Amino acid sequence: MKKGRLEAFSDGVIAIIITIMVLELHVPHGENIKDLVPLLPVLLSYVLSFVYVGIYWNNHHHMIYAAKTINGAILWANLHLLFWLSLIPFATAWMGENHFSRWPVILYGAVLIMNGVAYTILCGLLVTHSGEGSTLAVALGKDWKGKLSVVGYLVAIGLAFISPWIAFAIYALVAAMWFIPDRRIERNLSSSEDE
Amino acid sequence: MKKGRLEAFSDGVIAIIITIMVLELHVPHGENIKDLVPLLPVLLSYVLSFVYVGIYWNNHHHMIYAAKTINGAILWANLHLLFWLSLIPFATAWMGENHFSRWPVILYGAVLIMNGVAYTILCGLLVTHSGEGSTLAVALGKDWKGKLSVVGYLVAIGLAFISPWIAFAIYALVAAMWFIPDRRIERNLSSSEDE
Amino acid sequence: MKKGRLEAFSDGVIAIIITIMVLELHVPHGENIKDLVPLLPVLLSYVLSFVYVGIYWNNHHHMIYAAKTINGAILWANLHLLFWLSLIPFATAWMGENHFSRWPVILYGAVLIMNGVAYTILCGLLVTHSGEGSTLAVALGKDWKGKLSVVGYLVAIGLAFISPWIAFAIYALVAAMWFIPDRRIERNLSSSEDE
Amino acid sequence: MKKGRLEAFSDGVIAIIITIMVLELHVPHGENIKDLVPLLPVLLSYVLSFVYVGIYWNNHHHMIYAAKTINGAILWANLHLLFWLSLIPFATAWMGENHFSRWPVILYGAVLIMNGVAYTILCGLLVTHSGEGSTLAVALGKDWKGKLSVVGYLVAIGLAFISPWIAFAIYALVAAMWFIPDRRIERNLSSSEDE
Repeated sequence: MKKGRLEAFSDGVIAIIITIMVLELHVPHGENIKDLVPLLPVLLSYVLSFVYVGIYWNNHHHMIYAAKTINGAILWANLHLLFWLSLIPFATAWMGENHFSRWPVILYGAVLIMNGVAYTILCGLLVTHSGEGSTLAVALGKDWKGKLSVVGYLVAIGLAFISPWIAFAIYALVAAMWFIPDRRIERNLSSSEDE
Repeated sequence: MKKGRLEAFSDGVIAIIITIMVLELHVPHGENIKDLVPLLPVLLSYVLSFVYVGIYWNNHHHMIYAAKTINGAILWANLHLLFWLSLIPFATAWMGENHFSRWPVILYGAVLIMNGVAYTILCGLLVTHSGEGSTLAVALGKDWKGKLSVVGYLVAIGLAFISPWIAFAIYALVAAMWFIPDRRIERNLSSSEDE
Repeated sequence: MKKGRLEAFSDGVIAIIITIMVLELHVPHGENIKDLVPLLPVLLSYVLSFVYVGIYWNNHHHMIYAAKTINGAILWANLHLLFWLSLIPFATAWMGENHFSRWPVILYGAVLIMNGVAYTILCGLLVTHSGEGSTLAVALGKDWKGKLSVVGYLVAIGLAFISPWIAFAIYALVAAMWFIPDRRIERNLSSSEDE
Repeated sequence: MKKGRLEAFSDGVIAIIITIMVLELHVPHGENIKDLVPLLPVLLSYVLSFVYVGIYWNNHHHMIYAAKTINGAILWANLHLLFWLSLIPFATAWMGENHFSRWPVILYGAVLIMNGVAYTILCGLLVTHSGEGSTLAVALGKDWKGKLSVVGYLVAIGLAFISPWIAFAIYALVAAMWFIPDRRIERNLSSSEDE
């Protein structure tokens, strides 16, 4: 089964997800610069989610690129990931409009956890399909970054009961950790090309 | 006529359909976890439709992949399918917002029937165009799954007058039956590659 | 200059245009089948526009397929066509929500005229770029169908002052005339492949 | 790293940005031609932004086409550009709905500046990655057009305090200057192909 259409469809869905979030930046009724102030938390929430969706697109790009073929289970694991990604705009808008109050921040973390889980499942299926000794399997290794992220989100959700801003700071830190594309795959890909 | 642009355009439309449904998950005004409760039926409705659109994308992928060339009639049969798919977000939102009451559940079933009919027409034109003995024709065979689905939807619509939840359960069962990609094509494709 | 990205971008924009029109089918507040009745003109308007955008995508597909290379002027003529296509959802919604009253029907016709003009300009630039004796130039010939359409829209706008429904009927007739993909190109393409 | 998916994803996002702007053309409640008059500033604002997004797509097309490979930093510089492009619909709507009053016009200019900066960063990374003597590097040269644009936007923002319409005129003039695709790249590409 060719992976081209999986990439094209995922690109389309992710492109729409990353763009419809901006629709939550509702145009203010006033025409003064002060009228933009209430939008700042919405903008901040948008920036964080833009970076997160960008990270997922980026790593998705690398992961599928390293895979040679796909199968039916991988197609569905990919749709499962897209489902949880599609809830990010909702969680983003709720968090932004309520100025980072407790429950919206917790929901945002829960959605991030589910995305992490969906990504890990997709990852696992791709490794199984490619075979244990494949470039992809070696490159992903033990996926400590994925596991650390989920731990980070859980800690953030716990600390949100003290202050939602601490949770937000942890979400931002985890994003920063992922900001750099998955060099493990990139390095292994180029080293396997060198051989 | 090349089929590449037909795939690209269909992917684009299906990607948008699957994503705009999430816009119906209107952000609640409150900031409490209780404020999410009224959204649960909308979310449930979204999950069902996400799976259905995913199934259509998946089977569309397999079907067009097995086809070698297309013609003008196939282009229009494809647009006809996309038209009925584009009504799924509307039916989904009406069903979710009215908490699965009778008429919205019936409309949802009617839209599923029309999608099934449009898919069958597209299928038939592709088989005719490929020729009776082609991989695609052999693979699709008598399409009992497609016919069984339409029967399922009709039964569901009838039973919706007793309880809309029975209808919903049948829609979910039919989706479960389709969840697995069309192995008939996959199997025939790989066996024809083996020869 | 490669035409691949022009096709990809146009496909994306047209896919979005054809899909966002469905957002104007606002979910009714009631849960009864009667609550769908006021939506019928909106649905009728949507069907007509879906067919029109489908026709444009179809002919665009054929036209660009027949072209070998493009240039800067063609890129902009293509964007110009996409601009007028992007106004179709607005004209569709205004016509549907006002139940085909006079001015919305006239505006719809005016938008169709501008789309026809933009398509003719793009066509002309492609013919000039390909050269007078090229497959594309021979295939498009005198483009009587394009000219007849614009005459049809003008007549429809004039008759809208008597009854908007006559205008609507003419729009539907012109669409029916275009429904069949541009066989001139298809025929010439296949005959040139036969040689 | 292949650039194909970067192009596909960027095309998707830009196609959505250019199309969702039309959603701000809210359908008027009345059915008279007079009811369209209040929409004229929104339409004017839309036209300007359509041209700007078209210019960015066009130049993006040329720039990535001239690049041979990309890396992680380029991926993120590209996402950074897409982020600022995604704010154009918001700025467009605020400017159109407030009939080109001062602060919305200034915000629009500020968003244009940030887009210019993001484009320059992407440009710089591509040149560094391709190497100083590459076709791309020679073609872009000193990028006086990019620098002149930012100066133009700054002057426009300053003059907006006297009259927002002067600022609007300058935005239109800068767009006119960019209207022609980046001939520097086109010329160098074809001359390098001639060699």
